[in-house]
Amino acid sequence: MKTFEPPDPAFADRVRSSFGRQAIMATLGATLESVAPGAVEIRLPFRAELTQQHGFLHAGVMTAIADSACGYSALTLMPAGAGVLSVEFKVNLLSPGEGDAVVARGRVLKAGRTLIVCAGDVLSTRGGDERLVATMLATMMVVRDRPGIAD
Amino acid sequence: MKTFEPPDPAFADRVRSSFGRQAIMATLGATLESVAPGAVEIRLPFRAELTQQHGFLHAGVMTAIADSACGYSALTLMPAGAGVLSVEFKVNLLSPGEGDAVVARGRVLKAGRTLIVCAGDVLSTRGGDERLVATMLATMMVVRDRPGIAD
Amino acid sequence: MKTFEPPDPAFADRVRSSFGRQAIMATLGATLESVAPGAVEIRLPFRAELTQQHGFLHAGVMTAIADSACGYSALTLMPAGAGVLSVEFKVNLLSPGEGDAVVARGRVLKAGRTLIVCAGDVLSTRGGDERLVATMLATMMVVRDRPGIAD
Amino acid sequence: MKTFEPPDPAFADRVRSSFGRQAIMATLGATLESVAPGAVEIRLPFRAELTQQHGFLHAGVMTAIADSACGYSALTLMPAGAGVLSVEFKVNLLSPGEGDAVVARGRVLKAGRTLIVCAGDVLSTRGGDERLVATMLATMMVVRDRPGIAD
Repeated sequence: MKTFEPPDPAFADRVRSSFGRQAIMATLGATLESVAPGAVEIRLPFRAELTQQHGFLHAGVMTAIADSACGYSALTLMPAGAGVLSVEFKVNLLSPGEGDAVVARGRVLKAGRTLIVCAGDVLSTRGGDERLVATMLATMMVVRDRPGIAD
Repeated sequence: MKTFEPPDPAFADRVRSSFGRQAIMATLGATLESVAPGAVEIRLPFRAELTQQHGFLHAGVMTAIADSACGYSALTLMPAGAGVLSVEFKVNLLSPGEGDAVVARGRVLKAGRTLIVCAGDVLSTRGGDERLVATMLATMMVVRDRPGIAD
Repeated sequence: MKTFEPPDPAFADRVRSSFGRQAIMATLGATLESVAPGAVEIRLPFRAELTQQHGFLHAGVMTAIADSACGYSALTLMPAGAGVLSVEFKVNLLSPGEGDAVVARGRVLKAGRTLIVCAGDVLSTRGGDERLVATMLATMMVVRDRPGIAD
Repeated sequence: MKTFEPPDPAFADRVRSSFGRQAIMATLGATLESVAPGAVEIRLPFRAELTQQHGFLHAGVMTAIADSACGYSALTLMPAGAGVLSVEFKVNLLSPGEGDAVVARGRVLKAGRTLIVCAGDVLSTRGGDERLVATMLATMMVVRDRPGIAD
């Protein structure tokens, strides 16, 4: 995997602070597990309130944590003062979202000045086993000087 | 827009019943607004509990209702006994998710025997104004004879 | 469909000139059919040299003309001096690429300062009939002040 | 990386034979470099006839070899008699397509009975250096019993 040099040494605090302001993460019950340069992990315990009609986690829920994991992996490489916005993402659903919890791992593939391309995997865990349930390919934007968009 | 002939005359009841079993929709506060052959609309009032760090609806939340709207638009064209699963989707985020509510409109582009390709738009409403905030292109699967996957 | 006001009145000449420099379009045999604000059409006659193993036009070929149609629909809305680059696209293949020719119609969904989101349809024609064979959702970038990237 | 067990021991011959019938690959000048279970590599020397307006390989050209590499990586895991069709793909363009050649590496992420999800990277090479220029996430279909669709 590539190694990255964050331009802002406070990158991890910025991610934790911004994650704490994502009300939806608390609503879902998701927690920030780890922050490293170009890589962020988010965990979500399985809850029946988050399921679709067959009893699996809804694709939108897995997308939510994958998007946040990708977006924050991008934020670790942004200069101080910039904010992150999702431009677009694509998700393939590979297996039903079931088990004890799901973990989304976002990582940066390419960090440009304006756009950062990320990949994210969502794995379900049951006991010690992990299974790939979804994968994301996403484009994030480095937003500068826009009021209200800072992280 | 294309017109479709649902193979199952009970298509609208099937969609309503399956939507009622999507626990996540109640958790988010989303409601099923309309069901027609190849077209479904879901509405979600804005709630602060669903936002990302800048105070807009999180992309995963808009994806959740767009995915359900697309999936159920596909289900309207499936034979009795089949179930619907999301294979994959791509979402472009076009404007911040703000306003009074968002409405996701899913529609079928092409209905094959095994795969159904759908498009979905998410619009934010404020007073009487509508604004396109996200657009989805999705692939849905017609699942036959798999235990636990029926709609 | 939305109407757009091109900031550069010479938009159509710019598109024609840039299209003329896309060597691949001549290699494939594609021609620029029409240019309007936010909308561009490219046509490609069917040729056996462009097919995949079952005798249909290869998905990459249909993607090539859809990408150029989308990119040039975005270019019609860019200021003088800017260049266009494709950030990403997603393509669904809906029907085999066969017939007399295929036509790609790109149109702008949302024109931002830095990113322009486009949709493109590829239709096959046989006699007077048209059939949707592929659909694209794409993100294009407005490139300013980068040496070598101007259109 | 995952290891796969091809159900058809003649998988490599099938891929080589089907690749030989893709007329577009000869038209572009692409060659099949390697075939392994769930992994295929295709190489394309840089040619000015394949470029876009800034002198880089056109995104559609890189998509063409990535799609074939992904599709054939899926075919290595299909039972005898089945054919492969591309359902959809998403491509992020990361760097300009320049250099001596580009190499597309397709690999299977998940092999289902009907759908196979693949990832593909396109790297440009110059001398001994490699650079990631594009990445694809794709869905391929296992086609059974459809006249004209066998590989």
